[in-house]
Amino acid sequence: MSGAAPRRTVLAVRGEERRYRRDRLAAEEPMEVRVTDPSGLTSPVAVTMRTPGDDFELAAGFLVTEGVVAPGSIRRVAYCDDVAGDQLFNVVTVTTTALAVIGEASRVAATSACGVCGTASLDEVEVRCAPLGAGPRIAREVLLSFPALLRAGQRVFDKTGGLHAAGLFDPDGRLVCLREDIGRHNAVDKVIGHAALGDALPLADRVLVVSGRAGFEIVQKAAVAGIAVLAAVSAPSSLAADAAERFGLTLVGFLRDDGFNVYTHPERILV
Amino acid sequence: MSGAAPRRTVLAVRGEERRYRRDRLAAEEPMEVRVTDPSGLTSPVAVTMRTPGDDFELAAGFLVTEGVVAPGSIRRVAYCDDVAGDQLFNVVTVTTTALAVIGEASRVAATSACGVCGTASLDEVEVRCAPLGAGPRIAREVLLSFPALLRAGQRVFDKTGGLHAAGLFDPDGRLVCLREDIGRHNAVDKVIGHAALGDALPLADRVLVVSGRAGFEIVQKAAVAGIAVLAAVSAPSSLAADAAERFGLTLVGFLRDDGFNVYTHPERILV
Repeated sequence: MSGAAPRRTVLAVRGEERRYRRDRLAAEEPMEVRVTDPSGLTSPVAVTMRTPGDDFELAAGFLVTEGVVAPGSIRRVAYCDDVAGDQLFNVVTVTTTALAVIGEASRVAATSACGVCGTASLDEVEVRCAPLGAGPRIAREVLLSFPALLRAGQRVFDKTGGLHAAGLFDPDGRLVCLREDIGRHNAVDKVIGHAALGDALPLADRVLVVSGRAGFEIVQKAAVAGIAVLAAVSAPSSLAADAAERFGLTLVGFLRDDGFNVYTHPERILV
Repeated sequence: MSGAAPRRTVLAVRGEERRYRRDRLAAEEPMEVRVTDPSGLTSPVAVTMRTPGDDFELAAGFLVTEGVVAPGSIRRVAYCDDVAGDQLFNVVTVTTTALAVIGEASRVAATSACGVCGTASLDEVEVRCAPLGAGPRIAREVLLSFPALLRAGQRVFDKTGGLHAAGLFDPDGRLVCLREDIGRHNAVDKVIGHAALGDALPLADRVLVVSGRAGFEIVQKAAVAGIAVLAAVSAPSSLAADAAERFGLTLVGFLRDDGFNVYTHPERILV
């Protein structure tokens, strides 16, 4: 594990000028997630490329939002001690008292990282999630304040120009949790994993804000965590909007300092 | 299949103003990739979320760059005719005369979408690829012209603010192939798949330019396709730089109209 922003030598070319210098890059390393099920059997579930840090939260959040383990069923999270040297911090095992949804070992073996990408059937794409409740109501001014708060939180960590951020806010606009990662999904998984490990799911009264675009998988992860309001700084996809409509989730896109678009369920936004 | 930019009704809030309007969104739909191996056995390999269009290229490029089928071994690509209605255009089957690398059915079953995410073991992360040759040499002015050419090519398709682009250029700066997708990897897979279906691999004399960041998987896909120069408009990751160094690939990042950074093998860039 070499930190979140390791240095590399780069040749920088600007106009006629060229010089070698040391730059920080966003760290990317593979992390294998394993699950020990109630019978004591340990299986590899997925390898995800992630920025090291908050690895236990990432593993927990990934397994919960992908419907592999049931929320509230995580008994232990640990780095594996049967892996040598360098890889020690790149393998995380989650011990659960209950697998989720389908609840069979075969489900665990079949589920892979990156949201739905690993699901080997179209029919499995939609993870069943509990219906979202009324959720919070968010004032326009509060919503407009999120991008600056997210950037302010990010600035501390991100010297690299290469990290996504996900932030969890309360309805009054206070930042509850912010996580960064080279992978958009990972940043969201870390935030939700933080809540899962603190036994704070579902996040019924929270707003999730993401620094980039919102695709289907981000909407799915938010819905599984019980989040009723999701705001993205950039564009949502068509399927993200369709899924949000179906799940009863308020989807905001192009959230900037001076405005935003509401794609679904605008009743939670007070304009 | 509803086109690359379907319309949705959105509530647009700008300052005190609010109005409903019709906006185009980047289309995102799941696509299942299946492989029929030389024995005639058909297996689902992965589901990827993608922007519809160039689906055969995407399937071919994905299977080649992930090391599932051997380059030059694709005999037939088709939409599945055993799937009903809506899903007809979301399932693509590739018939191959040779599985790649490990070449076992188990490998196919174990490999999933999104680059390495689906690979269930750290040891499998690095796809073996043939050593890259000398590759092209690119003049600074040519390199600097790529971002504008990429944007110009994108503008035709992208009304949504939500699509990644990948462009293949020759050493003189001529655009050979440009593809867009909501997924960064998919845009690259479409470009490489286009070459695979035209029997044009390896792409020894080409430059691959991507609109966003460059992570490990983009470097891996480029290397498997024999591409020796990869340029990203935004930041590379640490592992992308490490992998490029190891593979002998020239990695350029932060490619803008007035400059760029070279992270590895700068000998191919004429500055």
